[in-house]
Amino acid sequence: MSRRYDSRTTIFSPEGRLYQVEYAIEAISHAAAAIGILTREGVVLVGEQKNTNKLLEAFHSEKMYQIDQHVCCAVAGITADANTLVEHCREAAQDHTFRFQEPIPIEHLVQILCDHKQSYTQFGGLRPYGVSFLFAGFDVQYGFQLYMSGPSGNYGGWKASAIGGNSPTAMSLLRQEYRDDLTLEEAKGLALKVLAKTMDTTTLTNNKNIDPTLPPKAPPPGS
Amino acid sequence: MSRRYDSRTTIFSPEGRLYQVEYAIEAISHAAAAIGILTREGVVLVGEQKNTNKLLEAFHSEKMYQIDQHVCCAVAGITADANTLVEHCREAAQDHTFRFQEPIPIEHLVQILCDHKQSYTQFGGLRPYGVSFLFAGFDVQYGFQLYMSGPSGNYGGWKASAIGGNSPTAMSLLRQEYRDDLTLEEAKGLALKVLAKTMDTTTLTNNKNIDPTLPPKAPPPGS
Amino acid sequence: MSRRYDSRTTIFSPEGRLYQVEYAIEAISHAAAAIGILTREGVVLVGEQKNTNKLLEAFHSEKMYQIDQHVCCAVAGITADANTLVEHCREAAQDHTFRFQEPIPIEHLVQILCDHKQSYTQFGGLRPYGVSFLFAGFDVQYGFQLYMSGPSGNYGGWKASAIGGNSPTAMSLLRQEYRDDLTLEEAKGLALKVLAKTMDTTTLTNNKNIDPTLPPKAPPPGS
Amino acid sequence: MSRRYDSRTTIFSPEGRLYQVEYAIEAISHAAAAIGILTREGVVLVGEQKNTNKLLEAFHSEKMYQIDQHVCCAVAGITADANTLVEHCREAAQDHTFRFQEPIPIEHLVQILCDHKQSYTQFGGLRPYGVSFLFAGFDVQYGFQLYMSGPSGNYGGWKASAIGGNSPTAMSLLRQEYRDDLTLEEAKGLALKVLAKTMDTTTLTNNKNIDPTLPPKAPPPGS
Amino acid sequence: MSRRYDSRTTIFSPEGRLYQVEYAIEAISHAAAAIGILTREGVVLVGEQKNTNKLLEAFHSEKMYQIDQHVCCAVAGITADANTLVEHCREAAQDHTFRFQEPIPIEHLVQILCDHKQSYTQFGGLRPYGVSFLFAGFDVQYGFQLYMSGPSGNYGGWKASAIGGNSPTAMSLLRQEYRDDLTLEEAKGLALKVLAKTMDTTTLTNNKNIDPTLPPKAPPPGS
Amino acid sequence: MSRRYDSRTTIFSPEGRLYQVEYAIEAISHAAAAIGILTREGVVLVGEQKNTNKLLEAFHSEKMYQIDQHVCCAVAGITADANTLVEHCREAAQDHTFRFQEPIPIEHLVQILCDHKQSYTQFGGLRPYGVSFLFAGFDVQYGFQLYMSGPSGNYGGWKASAIGGNSPTAMSLLRQEYRDDLTLEEAKGLALKVLAKTMDTTTLTNNKNIDPTLPPKAPPPGS
Amino acid sequence: MSRRYDSRTTIFSPEGRLYQVEYAIEAISHAAAAIGILTREGVVLVGEQKNTNKLLEAFHSEKMYQIDQHVCCAVAGITADANTLVEHCREAAQDHTFRFQEPIPIEHLVQILCDHKQSYTQFGGLRPYGVSFLFAGFDVQYGFQLYMSGPSGNYGGWKASAIGGNSPTAMSLLRQEYRDDLTLEEAKGLALKVLAKTMDTTTLTNNKNIDPTLPPKAPPPGS
Repeated sequence: MSRRYDSRTTIFSPEGRLYQVEYAIEAISHAAAAIGILTREGVVLVGEQKNTNKLLEAFHSEKMYQIDQHVCCAVAGITADANTLVEHCREAAQDHTFRFQEPIPIEHLVQILCDHKQSYTQFGGLRPYGVSFLFAGFDVQYGFQLYMSGPSGNYGGWKASAIGGNSPTAMSLLRQEYRDDLTLEEAKGLALKVLAKTMDTTTLTNNKNIDPTLPPKAPPPGS
Repeated sequence: MSRRYDSRTTIFSPEGRLYQVEYAIEAISHAAAAIGILTREGVVLVGEQKNTNKLLEAFHSEKMYQIDQHVCCAVAGITADANTLVEHCREAAQDHTFRFQEPIPIEHLVQILCDHKQSYTQFGGLRPYGVSFLFAGFDVQYGFQLYMSGPSGNYGGWKASAIGGNSPTAMSLLRQEYRDDLTLEEAKGLALKVLAKTMDTTTLTNNKNIDPTLPPKAPPPGS
Repeated sequence: MSRRYDSRTTIFSPEGRLYQVEYAIEAISHAAAAIGILTREGVVLVGEQKNTNKLLEAFHSEKMYQIDQHVCCAVAGITADANTLVEHCREAAQDHTFRFQEPIPIEHLVQILCDHKQSYTQFGGLRPYGVSFLFAGFDVQYGFQLYMSGPSGNYGGWKASAIGGNSPTAMSLLRQEYRDDLTLEEAKGLALKVLAKTMDTTTLTNNKNIDPTLPPKAPPPGS
Repeated sequence: MSRRYDSRTTIFSPEGRLYQVEYAIEAISHAAAAIGILTREGVVLVGEQKNTNKLLEAFHSEKMYQIDQHVCCAVAGITADANTLVEHCREAAQDHTFRFQEPIPIEHLVQILCDHKQSYTQFGGLRPYGVSFLFAGFDVQYGFQLYMSGPSGNYGGWKASAIGGNSPTAMSLLRQEYRDDLTLEEAKGLALKVLAKTMDTTTLTNNKNIDPTLPPKAPPPGS
Repeated sequence: MSRRYDSRTTIFSPEGRLYQVEYAIEAISHAAAAIGILTREGVVLVGEQKNTNKLLEAFHSEKMYQIDQHVCCAVAGITADANTLVEHCREAAQDHTFRFQEPIPIEHLVQILCDHKQSYTQFGGLRPYGVSFLFAGFDVQYGFQLYMSGPSGNYGGWKASAIGGNSPTAMSLLRQEYRDDLTLEEAKGLALKVLAKTMDTTTLTNNKNIDPTLPPKAPPPGS
Repeated sequence: MSRRYDSRTTIFSPEGRLYQVEYAIEAISHAAAAIGILTREGVVLVGEQKNTNKLLEAFHSEKMYQIDQHVCCAVAGITADANTLVEHCREAAQDHTFRFQEPIPIEHLVQILCDHKQSYTQFGGLRPYGVSFLFAGFDVQYGFQLYMSGPSGNYGGWKASAIGGNSPTAMSLLRQEYRDDLTLEEAKGLALKVLAKTMDTTTLTNNKNIDPTLPPKAPPPGS
Repeated sequence: MSRRYDSRTTIFSPEGRLYQVEYAIEAISHAAAAIGILTREGVVLVGEQKNTNKLLEAFHSEKMYQIDQHVCCAVAGITADANTLVEHCREAAQDHTFRFQEPIPIEHLVQILCDHKQSYTQFGGLRPYGVSFLFAGFDVQYGFQLYMSGPSGNYGGWKASAIGGNSPTAMSLLRQEYRDDLTLEEAKGLALKVLAKTMDTTTLTNNKNIDPTLPPKAPPPGS
């Protein structure tokens, strides 16, 4: 029955569902997981690198991307889609810096990305982006922040979140163990512990975080 | 039988119905509710935040948006659609201020939004926006105002209204208890009471309102 | 059999029918009625406001629209479509005034609207507008005028006409009781009487008319 | 069998037929008839006004249109389509006068209309125009002329012709009774007689003709 | 089986056939015939005018068109398509004369037409032109020439050729009786004889030919 | 089974095949053959002219085209497609000469053509070109060259090659009898011999070759 | 079941798969293999030339392409697609050099190609590119590099990799025998050995590599 409504982004099913968006979320559920934890001292992002072929170059990560000096992200889903969107974010960040002489506020960056994603769920001749994001960043107004966004173009600010395979399990673990007064070191430990439990194997790979001492790029004084 | 006519926005069914618009309304009926009440002293907007995960950041609301200094809105439906339309409204408001040196009249703002929504119910290769709005605002011509608009691009001025899940129940309660001489405080109480009855749980979250003493942004004198 | 030809505006059925236009007309037949009567002293427009929720603001009518100082209209059908087309008319009227320094002739305005509507019955990826109009106006060449137009983009000049639900009954009553020498007051009475007979309930709401003494906006002298 | 090929303007059936054009012709066969007769003294156009509601304004004809000072037309078919095409013709005529300082030659005008109609039988996402035309006009090169054109974009020069309902009967009567030496008065009589025989009722309405003494608009001397 | 591949111009059948082009050729096979014969003294074009209604104006031929002073054509197929393409040719001829100050070479003109036709056999949302052409012309480089082109956009130079109904019969007769040393008068006779044999009736109508003494328009000397 | 994937250029079959391209190749296999042989003294192109109607003008070849002074081609397939592409090549060659003041290198010309062809195998609303090419040319860098290209946009440099009907047979014969030290005269003989064996009849028509003594158009010295 | 979702690039299957991309990968699995090995002294690329017709010109390789002075690639899949993309890369490389006066960084070039490929997996009316790439290059920042990219637009940096037919076998062999301290000569030997095992026959053809002594094109000093 649902099959009449699941082949285009431009139709609602009778229950008001957008099946193509749900299928894109399904695509992400098979991807390697990533976990982010926000603390007062910084943000921790860890991710599982599923492809562990020893011939793959170490310098090349398909899981973590630096967007600008003050913001980076972890992705889960179709890597080619992620690459394209990451460049979209980088350009948006550079454009903001060029025009306003300040680093782009984190939520503003996320909103730009999500508007772009939303349009791929509403216009014909397109499919939604099959990728979820965890954004970790710092700006002078809100300090350290962690955002999660999915294929629908929805996003939210989180204290701790998980994307990719087994993310319900990871979210449940995080909910149990997250405390507001976690230090950055404790958060690293928690993130790795949660990731380990959601992975099939126990190999941990990449832990990267925003240096809490990184000063935000200030606007040039007197200009 | 209806199924022949429900997969595109560009066709009427033999009874003259637009099924895609009806399905979008169906999508909204599963969303968290929001209630608005208009008084002479101001407008009350309250909304249910369904996602009560303790890891979600408090500062981030997916229910209430400030459009401009003199107008804000509550939404119910697909959050990504709402985000996109809210930015559409903000740009329209800024554009009006820039061109006419006055805050945008509330109904004019609502009309701009609704024309945009209407076009998504008539042109091919698009789906309707799956989101309803309650706009609360103040302008010098009509004072405090409350508008409701749905996926079809229709809108109306209301004394009290509800969108999202269980909105028929909420409307019925409002009709019984609304009085024209409600004070702002009484309206807050009524809104929370109605919202509580329409929610599955009794947790109330976010009550935000237009400050009745907020002066409208005046055009710069002598210019 | 007809079903093969009823899902697009771009195809004729073998009998030369345009089903989508007929379905749009069907949509209008469920809408609240409106009645217009032309007299030598002015034009009467009355309409039924189906939504009589006491919470709905009185100042907001979805039935009557002022297009310009010398012309207004009543609508029946999809309100969002009507809103969009009314703005189309207002812009056309302002544009004419700006370019020719005279109020737009009524039939010219109607023709502009109808050409716009016609195109939505001939081009792919669109649906017809689901709304009928009664235009009441005054210009120096033809005096008071009343026009009716439907979803097909067709229009005609009428002495008395009705749109929306039960319009055949209303037309039949008008044909019996219309006289060329009706005064404006008599026309009001007739319009309300006809409307009352076509309505399910007897509540009458909105009667608005062109002031017969309204002087047409003259071109600025000496310019 | 034919049904595979009848839903688009962009396909031939295996026998080389364009069904959508044939269906448009079918639509015209249900319309009120119009008859044109060419004489040396002028051209007679008569038409049946099917809608004889006494409330319809007399000044508004949906059958006869003045294109320019030296050419007018009668139509049969979808009135909204006819309105749109008549404006197309009027603009073409004005444009020619503006550019060449002479009234547009009649066949040139007809050719412009027919090229426009033809394109609607060949490009996707369109339907053919459902209207036939009789053009009556005068130009200095060919004198009085009568043209007929149909939905396909085809046209021909005729001494006497008929469009709309029962046109085969009308053509047959015209062929029997037409003489090259008809006076304008005799042609009027013949046209009305033929029209009366093709109509269900015997009410005759509108007979309009090109004044044979109307001088063609000459190019300004010495310019 | 073939039916899967015959509804669009953009697909080959498994045998590499373009059915829509074949159906267009089928459409032409029902049209009135035209015959062209090339001699050293000029080119003869004759055509059957199927519509012999006595009310049709004699001056209006749907069979023969003058493109420019040195080239004309006969057509067979859908007249509206032919009209459109003839104008295309006329504009191409005028454009060439304007740019190069010489009459357009005949084959160049034919090539322009055929490229235009070819594109209608390859792009979506279009149908092929349902018309064949015989071009008769003279240029200084090749003298008198006769070309035939069909709906596919193919063309060839011929000594004698036929298009429209019964063209295989006509071609076979021409092959038997054509001689390279035919005089223009003999060619006229042959063309009429062949045409008569291919027609159902024996009425001959229009024989038009390029005057062999017509001098080609020379480029202005000294420029 | 394959039929689900063979009606558009924009889809792969599950085995990764592009059926529309294969059908275009099938169309070419019914066409008259052409054979090219590369020698140190020049390139030989021979082709079968299937249409041997004696009424067809001899000067008009549908098999061989001169692209520029230093390059020509033989084609097999849909002649209208070939005509269009040949003009595409001629314009590319002229454009190169105009911009760089040198004859276009042969492979560069072939690459331009093939990129154009490739795009017709990947974008929607188009069909592949149904024509294969043998390009024979000379440039200062690589001397005499022979290229073959098919509907997919693929191409290769060959010492001897064949396109059109029975090309596998022809290729097999060429492989047996080709020697690197063939003189131009011997190559002509071989080409005709191979062509004769692949033809149904033994009539040979057109043998055209690049004159081995033709000097390449040099760039103007001192400029 | 999967067949409902495999005919367009714009739809996810319910499991979140993009079938058209998978079919494009299938197309590549039938192509001739290519193998790349990265060493400190340079990069080795070897490829199988499946078409070993002795009439094919040796200078023309369909397997290896020079993009710029410091980067080349091997391809496997549809040759026409590869040609088009190689030109895309060449233009990107020239453009970068022109704008920044430095050779394009290798990963940047690969990213540009992959963004282009990704878009062909998300937009309607297109099919994915049916070709995989191995890029071998050198830049001052990362030295010698080897990248592999597939039809999805995904890419990765590798120490050794294989594309085309039997690539799983080749990858497995490479994983066993690759050592980080391979000399360029040893890498050549290993590449040929692996290629030989993956080929049906044992004929080896083309081994081409980046000269490890090739200095990167430096920006002009003092500019």
